[in-house]
Amino acid sequence: MSNYQPAPEDKFSFGLWTVGWRGVNTFGEPVRPPLDGAEAVYRLAELGAYGITFHDDDLIPPGSGAAARDAVVGRFRRALEDTGLTVPMVTTNLFAHPVFRDGGFTSNSRDVRRYAIRKVLRNIDLAAELGARTYVCWGGQDGAESEAAKDHRTALDRLREAFDILCGYVRERGYDLRFAIEPKPNEPRGDILLPTVGHALAFIGELAHPEMVGLNPEVGHEQMAGLNFAHGVAQALWHGKLFHIDLNGQRGVKYDQDLRFGAGDVKEAFFLVDLLERAGYDGPRHFDFKPPRTEDMDGVWTSAAACMRNYLVLREKAAAFRADPEVAEALAAARVAELAEPTLGPKETLADLMAEEIDLDEVGRRGYHFERLDQLALDHLFGVR
Amino acid sequence: MSNYQPAPEDKFSFGLWTVGWRGVNTFGEPVRPPLDGAEAVYRLAELGAYGITFHDDDLIPPGSGAAARDAVVGRFRRALEDTGLTVPMVTTNLFAHPVFRDGGFTSNSRDVRRYAIRKVLRNIDLAAELGARTYVCWGGQDGAESEAAKDHRTALDRLREAFDILCGYVRERGYDLRFAIEPKPNEPRGDILLPTVGHALAFIGELAHPEMVGLNPEVGHEQMAGLNFAHGVAQALWHGKLFHIDLNGQRGVKYDQDLRFGAGDVKEAFFLVDLLERAGYDGPRHFDFKPPRTEDMDGVWTSAAACMRNYLVLREKAAAFRADPEVAEALAAARVAELAEPTLGPKETLADLMAEEIDLDEVGRRGYHFERLDQLALDHLFGVR
Amino acid sequence: MSNYQPAPEDKFSFGLWTVGWRGVNTFGEPVRPPLDGAEAVYRLAELGAYGITFHDDDLIPPGSGAAARDAVVGRFRRALEDTGLTVPMVTTNLFAHPVFRDGGFTSNSRDVRRYAIRKVLRNIDLAAELGARTYVCWGGQDGAESEAAKDHRTALDRLREAFDILCGYVRERGYDLRFAIEPKPNEPRGDILLPTVGHALAFIGELAHPEMVGLNPEVGHEQMAGLNFAHGVAQALWHGKLFHIDLNGQRGVKYDQDLRFGAGDVKEAFFLVDLLERAGYDGPRHFDFKPPRTEDMDGVWTSAAACMRNYLVLREKAAAFRADPEVAEALAAARVAELAEPTLGPKETLADLMAEEIDLDEVGRRGYHFERLDQLALDHLFGVR
Amino acid sequence: MSNYQPAPEDKFSFGLWTVGWRGVNTFGEPVRPPLDGAEAVYRLAELGAYGITFHDDDLIPPGSGAAARDAVVGRFRRALEDTGLTVPMVTTNLFAHPVFRDGGFTSNSRDVRRYAIRKVLRNIDLAAELGARTYVCWGGQDGAESEAAKDHRTALDRLREAFDILCGYVRERGYDLRFAIEPKPNEPRGDILLPTVGHALAFIGELAHPEMVGLNPEVGHEQMAGLNFAHGVAQALWHGKLFHIDLNGQRGVKYDQDLRFGAGDVKEAFFLVDLLERAGYDGPRHFDFKPPRTEDMDGVWTSAAACMRNYLVLREKAAAFRADPEVAEALAAARVAELAEPTLGPKETLADLMAEEIDLDEVGRRGYHFERLDQLALDHLFGVR
Repeated sequence: MSNYQPAPEDKFSFGLWTVGWRGVNTFGEPVRPPLDGAEAVYRLAELGAYGITFHDDDLIPPGSGAAARDAVVGRFRRALEDTGLTVPMVTTNLFAHPVFRDGGFTSNSRDVRRYAIRKVLRNIDLAAELGARTYVCWGGQDGAESEAAKDHRTALDRLREAFDILCGYVRERGYDLRFAIEPKPNEPRGDILLPTVGHALAFIGELAHPEMVGLNPEVGHEQMAGLNFAHGVAQALWHGKLFHIDLNGQRGVKYDQDLRFGAGDVKEAFFLVDLLERAGYDGPRHFDFKPPRTEDMDGVWTSAAACMRNYLVLREKAAAFRADPEVAEALAAARVAELAEPTLGPKETLADLMAEEIDLDEVGRRGYHFERLDQLALDHLFGVR
Repeated sequence: MSNYQPAPEDKFSFGLWTVGWRGVNTFGEPVRPPLDGAEAVYRLAELGAYGITFHDDDLIPPGSGAAARDAVVGRFRRALEDTGLTVPMVTTNLFAHPVFRDGGFTSNSRDVRRYAIRKVLRNIDLAAELGARTYVCWGGQDGAESEAAKDHRTALDRLREAFDILCGYVRERGYDLRFAIEPKPNEPRGDILLPTVGHALAFIGELAHPEMVGLNPEVGHEQMAGLNFAHGVAQALWHGKLFHIDLNGQRGVKYDQDLRFGAGDVKEAFFLVDLLERAGYDGPRHFDFKPPRTEDMDGVWTSAAACMRNYLVLREKAAAFRADPEVAEALAAARVAELAEPTLGPKETLADLMAEEIDLDEVGRRGYHFERLDQLALDHLFGVR
Repeated sequence: MSNYQPAPEDKFSFGLWTVGWRGVNTFGEPVRPPLDGAEAVYRLAELGAYGITFHDDDLIPPGSGAAARDAVVGRFRRALEDTGLTVPMVTTNLFAHPVFRDGGFTSNSRDVRRYAIRKVLRNIDLAAELGARTYVCWGGQDGAESEAAKDHRTALDRLREAFDILCGYVRERGYDLRFAIEPKPNEPRGDILLPTVGHALAFIGELAHPEMVGLNPEVGHEQMAGLNFAHGVAQALWHGKLFHIDLNGQRGVKYDQDLRFGAGDVKEAFFLVDLLERAGYDGPRHFDFKPPRTEDMDGVWTSAAACMRNYLVLREKAAAFRADPEVAEALAAARVAELAEPTLGPKETLADLMAEEIDLDEVGRRGYHFERLDQLALDHLFGVR
Repeated sequence: MSNYQPAPEDKFSFGLWTVGWRGVNTFGEPVRPPLDGAEAVYRLAELGAYGITFHDDDLIPPGSGAAARDAVVGRFRRALEDTGLTVPMVTTNLFAHPVFRDGGFTSNSRDVRRYAIRKVLRNIDLAAELGARTYVCWGGQDGAESEAAKDHRTALDRLREAFDILCGYVRERGYDLRFAIEPKPNEPRGDILLPTVGHALAFIGELAHPEMVGLNPEVGHEQMAGLNFAHGVAQALWHGKLFHIDLNGQRGVKYDQDLRFGAGDVKEAFFLVDLLERAGYDGPRHFDFKPPRTEDMDGVWTSAAACMRNYLVLREKAAAFRADPEVAEALAAARVAELAEPTLGPKETLADLMAEEIDLDEVGRRGYHFERLDQLALDHLFGVR
């Protein structure tokens, strides 16, 4: 049995805002001290991560002057150099400040929309400077509690405009940077624009540069809508749009829990890792979780380490599942590979197809043996094979 | 006050399977007698509907010989002629028979996939013959209970293949017919392929003839995922893909209730009608509901009539809301129209934008007055203005 | 048509923390200034409320010395005297401070449990002094994210101990005060102790003084679990335990929205008001909502006024529904009154019952005409009768 | 590693309707042949079960004459004798037949309520004859789609009357039989009476013989409301009311899935088994699941065997978790045992308590180390320790 020690080649990354979360929510005050960005870099490197990511305001306290900003960034860079940690992704905080109370790119206030774009553009320069290849956009305040208050189609117009501007800027600057949209169904807004992986994928098709924009799906966000996350990721992969991924845990349709990876729907986590590994996804395995408020800083690092451990454990199990000869047999019995055969033969015409007959009674009796296959997966998950 | 009497120009249509639903579910046996298709036509016409729709098997009992089929279709046609009722949409039953236990277009069994396509093609001829302009595809059995049992990306390949075949056939025949995909998150399968409006919109972008395929969103299906149905419809409209719509009611995230239109989330029904009317949607207002098992046939017709009545009531209310001068004022205070102004001015450069400054404190204090606006909508819904 | 102007006899009350909510949540900073308790009293009185309620920390800033406390309470009292506003209910904040990160009465830390009880006892004296008759207990942090971390049965032991202590104290002091437990399924904890009305009702049965403890159900809390709030209130009434009620709005199974009353599930709000009025509930109609972050203080007062307006509108509609002769007829057709007849006759024996026969086919065909009745309710809700 | 072979002392039982489910639901026709009761007995005994349970109509086809009934029961008894299988529980079908379309004990129709009671009483005699000690009551049709159609408080009156009659009958006959109520939030009715474990527990407190009535909670039923099943079972145990249990799987808030045990929320299944074993629950481990429609009869038996296997696997893991010295240490660090200490000392007065002080800052900084503990549970679940 391996010791599940993460290494940089595993490509584990963490948001600075995750281990740095102080625990403020609607009902509770902060429970933990602020975490310095450089400190986070050293600790994450020690734990075996390869990357750290941040919102502009996570790293640089809002309102900092140029000197303070440079000092912070300098310290952060030195920590990166000291540790070899990378910055694979950067993102913008377009939600915390009161100006964003009705959204960023789609606020009803034009001056806020303009400010939101400026805030992103400024941070894109830093992202490029630090070598980030992905720029995540989560428009958590872009939504509504009342359908009367915001014209949804017009909001999509403005969102498209914003992405076209951002893509134009990146092209103009020649940055090697792609955007990844992070969908979410609700919270903090009653309903958020682009609520699921599907809505975001569809939206991208309408952009001036669709090739520059993909997805950053988050486990809990799809599960908050009761959707199967592995299926969402599979569809994103099918469209060639899995640019980044947010791994965490959620226990069903409720508030956004941001549990550590593995601590939510365990079986879906298994199949998710199985999918990512089989699909050859080679981007960061990015953890976007919130260590529960019950934890002090020791608990924060424990939970961060557990995110990576759980990924490695599940990766090993998924590989064993796929290598198991009985699984191969069960997959055959379940006709899983038969789905890959085109329904129409290579030279077949519709007339050929129409001429065929089927014995409905006989085929209707056919069993698919999916329970056996699924139980083999559970056996591997449990480690009892 | 109008009497809310539906007329053909209101374009109300009903599935034959709705008023004809006999009440079978997982826990209950049939409670109502079979309903003849022609009888349904006469009754719906009397109630003020303009159209009736059907699955192949609703109209023609499976296993009917050619003569029996012709007799049924003949009786149905005569009823249409007698009443002037139209058949704006037709669809296929790819779910009830045991052969479809693992899906239709994406069954792991190739012979089932082939049969599913044949079943659709045969029914398309009838649809075209009866003048239908929309062909709905609900792949309710196309899904899985176990991620191991079906490769989701391969399933999307097969689904694309199926739609490409169907579009090819319609083009070859020269039918004036478009397809409308009906998404659903789950039930009867644990998770269904193309679970939401968004996923289906994205999928369409990958087809050989995307212009021939759009959406048939259903109120309850999006609400089963806790999604805002008006938002889903708005996004479908934004993509030019609202080809048809299924109106019914659902009370939250649970099993598929198929309540009569108006009897679920009342406020969202109001905003939905407001959206459809303002957007100039001119397709059928199609009711896809299931009269509860508590009803006898009288109750079935009562609930069918109530679907139409509720639409007309809400249409009147939505119009009054939009015509109310205080609403106009409240919309202005809420800056709703300001969202239609492009964020970047017509000749503006990014440099211009970057040079601008915002007073974060002042703009952060800005209120949006959405509560007033939303309450005006409620007042109109209640009829107390 | 009435003007729906609230008056003290309508018994509308508001939490100081509702109109005083500054808008902090997991993703957003405060958007509104602090609201002084006395100021809230004057404004609510102007709007037509009869009562105001508070958590200890809402009124008296934590850490205040005796003098500061007395000054605050004095100002608050004067405002009450000036306006005639009452304080029908008081409650304790056992959730915001970091010490409560693992709960109040059921924290794993005994010193925290002891502090939680002290905090309540101190505030009970103030409650009694201000004439409150109900003391609400919401144990929002009493829960867990991991089943391993807290023994649920032991937590129930501690919760019982706490209520027994509180009841003992109130009896000892001779206060005319009853406790009302406010259940909630989750948020801020992954799962909260006593998640629904039912669990709290059952728990009360195990207390030393069950007669002193009842329920304070909240619309949104039951709806967050997809439960029917009117049914929950009905069961609380059936047990004689509806001691208080929190009115607000929620749109389905998601994070705790605390929308203004009327703005969530409109139809259920109608039936809730119908139930409260028919049951003769004579306690406060207490609004526990959060004006959305999009609102400035004007919007806060607009939404507070709308809560009351919506109650009055629905009360009028429910009365009209019950007075409508066609509704009486529809109720009869639906056999609603027949449910009130005991199933066994007054002198009947089981032998009599067993000897009876039923015509299953005939009775199986019986329709219940519920759709007609429900549509009449909708018609009244819409104001179109 | 054990081979997880079930034995009678493990007390695994199955509903005849589970392995006998033919696959009918709202959208699908039967996919499997009828299963004879005696055949089920032989197969389940072979697999290692100790018990079989049934609804009256599962065993004896409705409408059977006395001779047919006796023949069926005779064959079933012989199979029980041949195999040693027991009948620990029996229940009644008060949902499938059209007469129950508005419920059984709480139908608005008095003749239906009377018939429902007769149907139960008759079956109780058979239950007693076969040695059953538990009689389960699931009132799945006892609910409503419209609040107007059924007075909820009156329905509770009738439900109480029914249970009082049933208890009276059992006492009169001197049967050693207790009733177990099975709560469910919805489906097939929009909202069901006694929707959760909590509501049922509270209801029992109002009965004439509360000691004769307990709970039969079902995994999926609580999870359909997003509730934590282990917590619900813990509260039932706390009240001394866990009379029976239905084990199965559910993947979140959606339609009733009835997956095999272990195939839903894996982590909650682990903690459930841990709870049942630690609490010394010694009743049947009853599986109430529906083998998916994709399965033929082979798949049915595979999934039945997997239910038992998963319980045994989880039992072994839970025992290992509790025996692990590092877990003991982590439990101590998490102060789990401290919750068992009464909050007030044995001789302590409230005055003593009030005199105590707490250092809020220091205690506020205290971490609870729950993440470490929860990860140890996951490690045991994964079998990687």
